[in-house]
Amino acid sequence: MPRLILVRHGQSQWNLENRFTGWWDVDLTAQGEAEARAAGALLAAKGVLPTVAFTSLQTRAIKTLHLALEAAGRLWIPETKDWRLNERHYGGLTGLDKAETAAQHGDEQVKIWRRSFDIPPPVLEPGGAFDLAADPRYAGIAIPSTESLKDTIARVLPYYESAIAPQLAAGETVVVAAHGNSLRALVKHLSGISDADITGLEIPTGQPIVYELDAALNATERYYLSER
Amino acid sequence: MPRLILVRHGQSQWNLENRFTGWWDVDLTAQGEAEARAAGALLAAKGVLPTVAFTSLQTRAIKTLHLALEAAGRLWIPETKDWRLNERHYGGLTGLDKAETAAQHGDEQVKIWRRSFDIPPPVLEPGGAFDLAADPRYAGIAIPSTESLKDTIARVLPYYESAIAPQLAAGETVVVAAHGNSLRALVKHLSGISDADITGLEIPTGQPIVYELDAALNATERYYLSER
Repeated sequence: MPRLILVRHGQSQWNLENRFTGWWDVDLTAQGEAEARAAGALLAAKGVLPTVAFTSLQTRAIKTLHLALEAAGRLWIPETKDWRLNERHYGGLTGLDKAETAAQHGDEQVKIWRRSFDIPPPVLEPGGAFDLAADPRYAGIAIPSTESLKDTIARVLPYYESAIAPQLAAGETVVVAAHGNSLRALVKHLSGISDADITGLEIPTGQPIVYELDAALNATERYYLSER
Repeated sequence: MPRLILVRHGQSQWNLENRFTGWWDVDLTAQGEAEARAAGALLAAKGVLPTVAFTSLQTRAIKTLHLALEAAGRLWIPETKDWRLNERHYGGLTGLDKAETAAQHGDEQVKIWRRSFDIPPPVLEPGGAFDLAADPRYAGIAIPSTESLKDTIARVLPYYESAIAPQLAAGETVVVAAHGNSLRALVKHLSGISDADITGLEIPTGQPIVYELDAALNATERYYLSER
């Protein structure tokens, strides 16, 4: 039966510094690389071996995928990268750390942006330090200026349906190496989690989450691979 | 205009030990990894930035590609892996070092196998240490039991025509990270080298070779990027 493995990228430099990252292309730390290798070693140890891979256009997810696949002996499987698996775009919060954000906007407002389902942060003003308009990886893509979790889900799920679900329906074991919020979109869909509850659901870094699916791609089981 | 970048993988453990490798999946050495990073840094320094990538199903080529793309800031480009870009299959020579091969077959015979265009080494006997029949990456593929350079070319060129040439025709800058003999196939084709001469043409490891092509994909120039 089809099987879907979700892996959130390991620690990035800005996870470590507690800054809003979103679409900014921050690399993994050494710890993040180690998390990715450990995730791949776990896949191999448990015999849960992906046959097809998907990831975002962001270095931290791509490297997590590559390090995990190498550790699992699966570097050779086909992989597809797509911007629709990118992290939620944090708009004008991009690059700010917790203290800066609270100083500019107040703790309560920050909590609303982080935890509400459909309220996006202020837009990222064009021309600033984190403007991605000139980044060639997004050529031809309407780069969002900010996103709520709802907005993120609205681009992840159609991609899941059009690109990932057909691979699952063909019986593949699919690994998706991506980000906290793009993976939340998949977990919300597959586990039927409400709008209110999904914002509080934490996806741990580098911990493979496995969905066992039936032929109609309904989840029959969800578990952390480390607990099997 | 279209541009094709060829990169032979950096030093592998068996390059170092001077053993016939072929389809056996040997990893890069630390020096091989450094060569791959240097190749990518050179691409960035010269502004020759790939937009589409191809590689084989073999770890040493895939890792060379990933390390080079990362160093070039291009980890996010689409990549396709295909067995038809694999190294020449060395048949029964797989795993033998130079001394073992000469002892078993004689220096003259070894020179013939290495340097003739169409004489393959003896077949790899099934069930031995280097049998790949159980390797899942080759499931559904008629794994050769040995190959001459001519045999290798006979699978590389149709793949070039069907998968790589259309990307070039669309104006992409294509990087192919592969192996001495699969890259010889491309050089033979693009530079019009004779059967007699191609076997003596050495492709250095980790040195990007650039082909400038016209709209009909005929080569107008070939150069080592390090010399520009």
